[in-house]
Amino acid sequence: MKYELLKEIAENSNKKIIVVQGLGFVGAVMSLVCANTTKEDYLVFGIDLKSQKKKIDSINSGKFPINASDKKIIKFYSNSIKNKNFFATHDERVFSLADFIIVDINLDVKKNSSENGKLLSYDVNLNNFKKGIVSIGKNCKENVLVLVETTVPPGTCMKLIKPTIHKELKKRKLSTDKLKIGHSYERVMPGPNYIDSIINFYRVYSGIDETSANETEKFLKTIISTDKYPLTRLMNTNATEMAKVLENSYRSYNIAFAVEWSRYAEEAGVNLYEIVNAIRMRPTHSNMMLPGIGVGGYCLTKDPLLASWAKVNNFKSDKNLEQSELGVFINDQMPLFCFNFLKKSFKLKSFFNLKVLLLGVSYRSDVGDTRYSPVELLYKLLKRDNASITLHDPYVDYWEEIDMKINQNLHEILNFEYDIIVISTAHKEYLKRETISKFSEMENIK
Amino acid sequence: MKYELLKEIAENSNKKIIVVQGLGFVGAVMSLVCANTTKEDYLVFGIDLKSQKKKIDSINSGKFPINASDKKIIKFYSNSIKNKNFFATHDERVFSLADFIIVDINLDVKKNSSENGKLLSYDVNLNNFKKGIVSIGKNCKENVLVLVETTVPPGTCMKLIKPTIHKELKKRKLSTDKLKIGHSYERVMPGPNYIDSIINFYRVYSGIDETSANETEKFLKTIISTDKYPLTRLMNTNATEMAKVLENSYRSYNIAFAVEWSRYAEEAGVNLYEIVNAIRMRPTHSNMMLPGIGVGGYCLTKDPLLASWAKVNNFKSDKNLEQSELGVFINDQMPLFCFNFLKKSFKLKSFFNLKVLLLGVSYRSDVGDTRYSPVELLYKLLKRDNASITLHDPYVDYWEEIDMKINQNLHEILNFEYDIIVISTAHKEYLKRETISKFSEMENIK
Repeated sequence: MKYELLKEIAENSNKKIIVVQGLGFVGAVMSLVCANTTKEDYLVFGIDLKSQKKKIDSINSGKFPINASDKKIIKFYSNSIKNKNFFATHDERVFSLADFIIVDINLDVKKNSSENGKLLSYDVNLNNFKKGIVSIGKNCKENVLVLVETTVPPGTCMKLIKPTIHKELKKRKLSTDKLKIGHSYERVMPGPNYIDSIINFYRVYSGIDETSANETEKFLKTIISTDKYPLTRLMNTNATEMAKVLENSYRSYNIAFAVEWSRYAEEAGVNLYEIVNAIRMRPTHSNMMLPGIGVGGYCLTKDPLLASWAKVNNFKSDKNLEQSELGVFINDQMPLFCFNFLKKSFKLKSFFNLKVLLLGVSYRSDVGDTRYSPVELLYKLLKRDNASITLHDPYVDYWEEIDMKINQNLHEILNFEYDIIVISTAHKEYLKRETISKFSEMENIK
Repeated sequence: MKYELLKEIAENSNKKIIVVQGLGFVGAVMSLVCANTTKEDYLVFGIDLKSQKKKIDSINSGKFPINASDKKIIKFYSNSIKNKNFFATHDERVFSLADFIIVDINLDVKKNSSENGKLLSYDVNLNNFKKGIVSIGKNCKENVLVLVETTVPPGTCMKLIKPTIHKELKKRKLSTDKLKIGHSYERVMPGPNYIDSIINFYRVYSGIDETSANETEKFLKTIISTDKYPLTRLMNTNATEMAKVLENSYRSYNIAFAVEWSRYAEEAGVNLYEIVNAIRMRPTHSNMMLPGIGVGGYCLTKDPLLASWAKVNNFKSDKNLEQSELGVFINDQMPLFCFNFLKKSFKLKSFFNLKVLLLGVSYRSDVGDTRYSPVELLYKLLKRDNASITLHDPYVDYWEEIDMKINQNLHEILNFEYDIIVISTAHKEYLKRETISKFSEMENIK
């Protein structure tokens, strides 16, 4: 949508204006949440890069661009159309209208991995993220509250975001005293509780100073059910930035533990699921992980590396996070273990000429997010080994990373015969009795 | 007590006889539990090596050899004296009287570490453990149930215990068909809930065959509140053996995670306690560990190594448990980090001539167990750095590992002045208001 039109909408409204920067899996849904809160009347503008034109147009023309099983998404989106309080644009000038700017853009780790998924090296590239922050500084009001939700290397708010915006404000001869920057990381979980993972969940927050922290708190209270899920303020932005990468590293690290012990269980000929379930009866061990085909998604695959990178680069440590990095290294190879496990289980020399059906390409059950999906490496390994692969996913019609259209008609797909069927993502549909019984009717299946 | 006397007691009783092998922190208390169960009337004989004469005599002469804050221990011990159903001996022939033999002897890992606590190499020595099993085989009835509670390298029941006892039975021209071997690891937690950690807690069990598993189940039901804490049967002894070292490795591994991130938090100048407490609000992260002065005790310091050793030696894997070993490596150095932290915090070049009070030498709050206590390395580092150290522990009158008597009069000790006081074990007594206020009255304290 054109800036002039948005400006007009803003001027004809007496609502506070939120600009959400980044319309991905977090920002798009965060926008809906802001537009639908009952505690305050907000006008929400979402902004993303010109390259995301398809997504922007989709939002403005009545089709929400993210598929997920959470029915609240459709409801919230319809409400925002009815209330005319959510629009999208790529025009940076929209920042000038904002009372609140929520930063939900990416900050990526570039991984250099072998064909088998082995992490060879990695790098944190701040350029794109910094460009996003510059565009805020070039346009924002001097007294705006910038709330950073992006997972950043610890130290980023103080060492990058604050000085960058200050510099731009000074260029525009504006005061830097009134700027407020808060950090409060999201814990968004795409899937059936997508919306609730924002509204009804605990939040940690901080500010670059006392005023920033207070204003961040005030703002979050208008969005989140803080009566049921009280906020926790931490001492500074380093602390909240660390909290986010720490909690994701913990999860990734605990998955890596399960991976290493799965190999052991295979060697000893015992069932790790049975063992872990027995141990989970201890309350202190109830969150022990079960092995799977791999770790995917945008967070767990990179956050431990962000953390480790910042330890050395932002805080001049002489040691990286050895254990958290090792965890990522091990997790990245899970699809390879899965591939080898299949080969061994079916006593195959290669998959040459075998018809393999992969059910599910997204990284997580009941969501269409394929970013860093472990199915990608499994697919590539099978492909390289000359398997004839059929793909299905009820939530994905086009697999971006592989550049391939996905057949979404499970009924049709199950009419063919396969040598091997892998439930590569645990979508509910696959675990239904009628689907499972379909498998057992097939004749040639191994 | 002499074998002949025990034999007479046995013959004049119609009770089933349990022999508990090993009278350490597990076996001694397990004996009390067996002698006090209301579900069956047992006569319990405890056996330990001749070298443990002091402990054996103590049990037979009215003084239980283990100090702990659990009042039930005194009560259970008095009951067993009153009921005359618990006696101790070092005479192996006692095994011949047993209907049930419970194996609670040690199986040690020999660690070779540097002066700073760095693990250089380690080895699992099965000799003493095997001797214990041989002594059972030389004496036991052919239809006895041997219940192994010792934490053993996965594979031990099948690869060592079963063949060893079979061999001895054959030498005695007895049948090997009737022998039953079960494995059910304890989860004993010395401290205020010592007894309950046996009776009122979940158990996992298995047998070397169906009959063994059934008989083990039957026996455990007479000892444990299995109505409230249902038993879990696993497929074989490899599985239960692995479960034990897995759950302890998980705990040790998660402590190591906290250790690495503590260093990070120090570098970034944030408070890790604050961060972890905020993250713990997530149910999936509620068991995240807080950093401390070190990991001690008999289990967490060695079980990951037992596991890793068995992976290579019993199951011929080409890879050890890299992550679990790294965890032990990191945990072993925690007292060194603590020492350096003290030095840095007080801006010291050395501890020369400084009076340091270490409150607590045991590895865990409110228990007198000093095995592998992290306080040991901290003490040695301070000593080497020429500190003048005073020690106190309400549960330890003699510190075996250091060969030193411990003053147990806190009141007296706090009358002196110190430069630094470290609460090295979180015994309740130290955290009382009057103790803390005593500290603040001291003049020279840093």
